[in-house]
Amino acid sequence: MSVIRQDLITKDWTIFAGDRSGRPTDFKKVKEKKVLNEYEPCCPFCRGNDHMTPKEVFTIEGDDGWLVRVVPNKFPILEPGGKTETDIKRSAAGPYLEIDGTGSHEVIIESPKHNDNLCQLESGQVENVIRTYRERFIELSSNKNNKLIVIFKNHGNKAGTSLVHPHSQLVATPFIPSFVRNRFCESERYFNDFGKCVYCEMIAYEKKIRKRIIYENEGFIALAPYASAVPYNIWILPKKHQACFAKISENDIVSLATNLKTVIKKLYNLLDDPDYNYIIDSTPIDQAGSRFYHWHIEVVPQLITRAGFEIGSGINVNTILPERCAELLRATDT
Amino acid sequence: MSVIRQDLITKDWTIFAGDRSGRPTDFKKVKEKKVLNEYEPCCPFCRGNDHMTPKEVFTIEGDDGWLVRVVPNKFPILEPGGKTETDIKRSAAGPYLEIDGTGSHEVIIESPKHNDNLCQLESGQVENVIRTYRERFIELSSNKNNKLIVIFKNHGNKAGTSLVHPHSQLVATPFIPSFVRNRFCESERYFNDFGKCVYCEMIAYEKKIRKRIIYENEGFIALAPYASAVPYNIWILPKKHQACFAKISENDIVSLATNLKTVIKKLYNLLDDPDYNYIIDSTPIDQAGSRFYHWHIEVVPQLITRAGFEIGSGINVNTILPERCAELLRATDT
Repeated sequence: MSVIRQDLITKDWTIFAGDRSGRPTDFKKVKEKKVLNEYEPCCPFCRGNDHMTPKEVFTIEGDDGWLVRVVPNKFPILEPGGKTETDIKRSAAGPYLEIDGTGSHEVIIESPKHNDNLCQLESGQVENVIRTYRERFIELSSNKNNKLIVIFKNHGNKAGTSLVHPHSQLVATPFIPSFVRNRFCESERYFNDFGKCVYCEMIAYEKKIRKRIIYENEGFIALAPYASAVPYNIWILPKKHQACFAKISENDIVSLATNLKTVIKKLYNLLDDPDYNYIIDSTPIDQAGSRFYHWHIEVVPQLITRAGFEIGSGINVNTILPERCAELLRATDT
Repeated sequence: MSVIRQDLITKDWTIFAGDRSGRPTDFKKVKEKKVLNEYEPCCPFCRGNDHMTPKEVFTIEGDDGWLVRVVPNKFPILEPGGKTETDIKRSAAGPYLEIDGTGSHEVIIESPKHNDNLCQLESGQVENVIRTYRERFIELSSNKNNKLIVIFKNHGNKAGTSLVHPHSQLVATPFIPSFVRNRFCESERYFNDFGKCVYCEMIAYEKKIRKRIIYENEGFIALAPYASAVPYNIWILPKKHQACFAKISENDIVSLATNLKTVIKKLYNLLDDPDYNYIIDSTPIDQAGSRFYHWHIEVVPQLITRAGFEIGSGINVNTILPERCAELLRATDT
């Protein structure tokens, strides 16, 4: 018989079916290995091709040129609009509501080199990437039109990217989506009931039972969540309570860089460079001081297909228990 | 500049970016056409191979054998458990909640023939399929352990199926997922505010402006929803208020069969047999008499990839407006 587990925070359910003890080979993708060059004349993200993108809004410079470069997305889904909230047109169309597509959409180029991979970068360069995330988060938070900032990475075709040059993206939105609001409200409800941050409680419990921890260092803990939505789902959380990603300290940037790099390297080695997304889940901008929300990075490997049942019910169906994923990832070298 | 639209019912948002006037060729998939046989010796769903599946729980019989056949899924994600609600074990694991994987998981084989396609079946056979959906819905609703029944179809690889023999599935769950509860609560809120079913209001408005209607017949209306989550998203709704799918009349089964077949045939002709899911969104079992919920079929063509932004924010990004999709589908022959 399968088991159904509830996510403590979102109250969403995952059905664990199948044999649930999955071997890593079940998920290894069949793909052609392509040897990439360090520089690619057609790639807009390679150092030397800077004219192929909009002008940069931020860089971290090294001895030979930029190390990390942030540019507005050439095909933005949202673009900067008016100066104040009231400049953004919200209009009714019959019973419906429409907003101008204002906000920001940026690309964070993680390395000058075309053939780099986040998990093979020097630690100092991963720190530069995270530092860049923070700087852009702070900068875009100062625009009162922005309500939520989503930083994410799409790695590989199944994760929704066709550009192989390592990069992340940032989107700032003029509203809070119900998906984020629900998660936020459920955390608040827990805080009202128990007087504690639900994420802090979860970390404390996971540290006690030690079955789903993948990797832990000074500032961060990586674990396979109890109701993992997909195989090899991973959350990386700051061990001390912190609601908003922008509050991350310099010390913690160093610690997070090691943790993130280690986790991605373990996935790379165990599953042969799987396609994956990661997302920084932080508070809405106006709630940076929240006592009940706790920012974290969610890593979502793209190993299975979401079908009609998942789409229609919002229930996840997974085939491997997080305890097993954590065990296999812990045992994987980096 | 892109536009952002809110779904009137779920309050979810979709960003319409890109040129939004998309040509159908933008979404045609590159695929190998494979000629299928009417009978396939290895296919468990072909008539004559009935021993390859668990024993049927329902059939509609024709002169030469079964026309529609329902069998328990050989690899069920949920299985029948105890007789009463209290037989289902709900256990706490630290702060977490787990339920035994009880429920039902059935396969509805839509035709004896391996090479059939829903949109090429005789109308009478599509009626048989819908009649079967209704009979199984009613039968499984009588089990007090079941709380929600999800009937869905996965057509094609990208929609999550590898079996080409035409079939749908049914899953009965022992809980209401938050995704469904949220949609239900938002409909209730609208009813409390305005005293009307939000779906009935939407249908009335769409009939007035006639920009997003794809096909309409006596009992049903097919339209491209205002905040379509994906390209060529379609809802098929009963024109008269009805909360629960199980209440569909014999007359309406005939009308729905024509509507569903027409819609799928239009997709087939316009986009060259795209992969798609459809789902019957109905009330939780205990709420069949709801004044504010309105069952419908949601058709979700699988033409784009959900990436990190969508996963992390719950915001949809679409590249073609529903008005344009409706226009193209209306103009497509069947």
